[in-house]
Amino acid sequence: MDNQHGGNIVAFAKEIGTHPLEVIDLSSNINFVKPKIEFDFNTLEISPYPNYDKLEDALARRYEIAKEEFELFNGATSAIYALFSLLKPQYATLYAPLYLEYEKALNLTQGQIEHINRFEDIYKEPKENSLVVFVNPSTPDGKHYDLERLIKIWIDKNCTIVIDESFLDFTSHKSATSYIKEYSKLYILKSMTKFYSSAGVRIGVLISTQKNIQAIKTKEPLWKISEFDSHYLQEALKDKEFKEISDNAHQESYKKLIEILENFPYTDKIYPTDANFMLVKLKGMDAPTLQKKLLPHKIMIRNCSNFKFLDDSYVRIAIKSGECMGVLEVGLRSIS
Amino acid sequence: MDNQHGGNIVAFAKEIGTHPLEVIDLSSNINFVKPKIEFDFNTLEISPYPNYDKLEDALARRYEIAKEEFELFNGATSAIYALFSLLKPQYATLYAPLYLEYEKALNLTQGQIEHINRFEDIYKEPKENSLVVFVNPSTPDGKHYDLERLIKIWIDKNCTIVIDESFLDFTSHKSATSYIKEYSKLYILKSMTKFYSSAGVRIGVLISTQKNIQAIKTKEPLWKISEFDSHYLQEALKDKEFKEISDNAHQESYKKLIEILENFPYTDKIYPTDANFMLVKLKGMDAPTLQKKLLPHKIMIRNCSNFKFLDDSYVRIAIKSGECMGVLEVGLRSIS
Repeated sequence: MDNQHGGNIVAFAKEIGTHPLEVIDLSSNINFVKPKIEFDFNTLEISPYPNYDKLEDALARRYEIAKEEFELFNGATSAIYALFSLLKPQYATLYAPLYLEYEKALNLTQGQIEHINRFEDIYKEPKENSLVVFVNPSTPDGKHYDLERLIKIWIDKNCTIVIDESFLDFTSHKSATSYIKEYSKLYILKSMTKFYSSAGVRIGVLISTQKNIQAIKTKEPLWKISEFDSHYLQEALKDKEFKEISDNAHQESYKKLIEILENFPYTDKIYPTDANFMLVKLKGMDAPTLQKKLLPHKIMIRNCSNFKFLDDSYVRIAIKSGECMGVLEVGLRSIS
Repeated sequence: MDNQHGGNIVAFAKEIGTHPLEVIDLSSNINFVKPKIEFDFNTLEISPYPNYDKLEDALARRYEIAKEEFELFNGATSAIYALFSLLKPQYATLYAPLYLEYEKALNLTQGQIEHINRFEDIYKEPKENSLVVFVNPSTPDGKHYDLERLIKIWIDKNCTIVIDESFLDFTSHKSATSYIKEYSKLYILKSMTKFYSSAGVRIGVLISTQKNIQAIKTKEPLWKISEFDSHYLQEALKDKEFKEISDNAHQESYKKLIEILENFPYTDKIYPTDANFMLVKLKGMDAPTLQKKLLPHKIMIRNCSNFKFLDDSYVRIAIKSGECMGVLEVGLRSIS
């Protein structure tokens, strides 16, 4: 199945001959809890050119940053492409495994890439002056790292630092944005689609110093974000109870998923996660076999073999509703 | 007023102390007729990653192109930036006056720029192997050109050709897409926001050969377009009566605008237009003065002094509803 990134529900549904709405997608990491949206999108005036002032105000408040310290993109991936095309790094150090688009974007700028294995050699020193990319919480395992020691290493090596915090909102940890005051070659990236349950809404935020953001803005078109998307996110940001509701629901499903996986005889190792997905090492069965065995249950999971340092004994399973976890339980039991 | 592009209604409203909805925006060229949208946006499932198959099918049918012959962007401006960043033209020839973003995008790729004056010297030969950009119908005057002779010149000079047809849907003229079969270094650009009355929806289409589009796709992220925007445009494309309704409404307002401008003593020249806006040369009054005199009527018009080959004796006025044209009439009469 050509589903490198997970989440291609339409193709999956077509393959197994069902409706996309019937598919239980445990391959992509979109929050299964949705924010309360009290807005009638049918009344939205979309004829005029967009104005992002209110959205930027709301994001500045939410993430405690100045409006001049960030730029909006059509999703975090668009931000990655734009940033690398600006920085054109000659040498990049990726803390792997990590989100695949980083390597793809770096290949386009033709820089040299080194991978540091987060699991085995995380404090290995990166090359002087290189661009380092760290995803925190990480993918595909969801671990949140205390970055203090790493940031010290990176600054000592005069690195340009990119920290991807697309899953940080699922945790209670602090953002690395506070380091921007101390070190200007730092970029923080946040996808707005994971936590706010809206991959169909294309908004990502790139945060850095005012000067760095100004340099990026000169390379960017005036209007990128849809007025619909802007209003969706403004509404989502207004929902003050969402974080607590989402956290509680995840905690419950997390426990259930752990229990299901502990009872699954082909589980070798469950990786501790701080995010809304779980990396599992299988034994006695490979990822494609498990994917195939879950097809009759209309369940998609992520084969992690195309992640650096992983192989086809690894799968990633999203933490979804209790009901979805229940279907997974039935599916896995039928294999046991 | 820092309103280079027109259309910044929010800033304008703030300046004159009114609500944005009170502003009569004759500075931006968005269709005042809206397509019939029979879709409940509140029911849209935006959690999953977007799938653009249906939108691409609809666009392929509408513009009689293959799905492999175009790429979607977040508006035509995003397409321009992406295309120039890919092509990195060393020498570009812009048929001016034209949309300002072309020069801005070319400045980023640091190529040399030559302007050919469409009004005075249109058949001047561009430099061999250069990139030529032609907007048809043109901005800010709205003239539609028969491109046959120009295309012959450009092909003879081995130019890479970019034709911006963002306003072509307002006319009944044929697209230049048919030339793609004959000449592979041809790109056609279409903004979906002008004709379909949706600047808040960010969709532009870049059309070329399958091979060129494939090269562009490798440099682009997987997901860019909002699911909301995709559905808006799919609905708009379904409205088969829209073109006729829009054309009739424009014809009526066009006549009224001509009449109003002919009776305005400061009109020096009205440029014939095929699009939904009109270029006017003033006499005895400059554009900033006219803009200022229209402020009490909450009317925005476009000062064309930042267009190449024009000066502050030129204004662009959008063709809007009969009611809006009526307010303009009152405004202009109060000046006479």
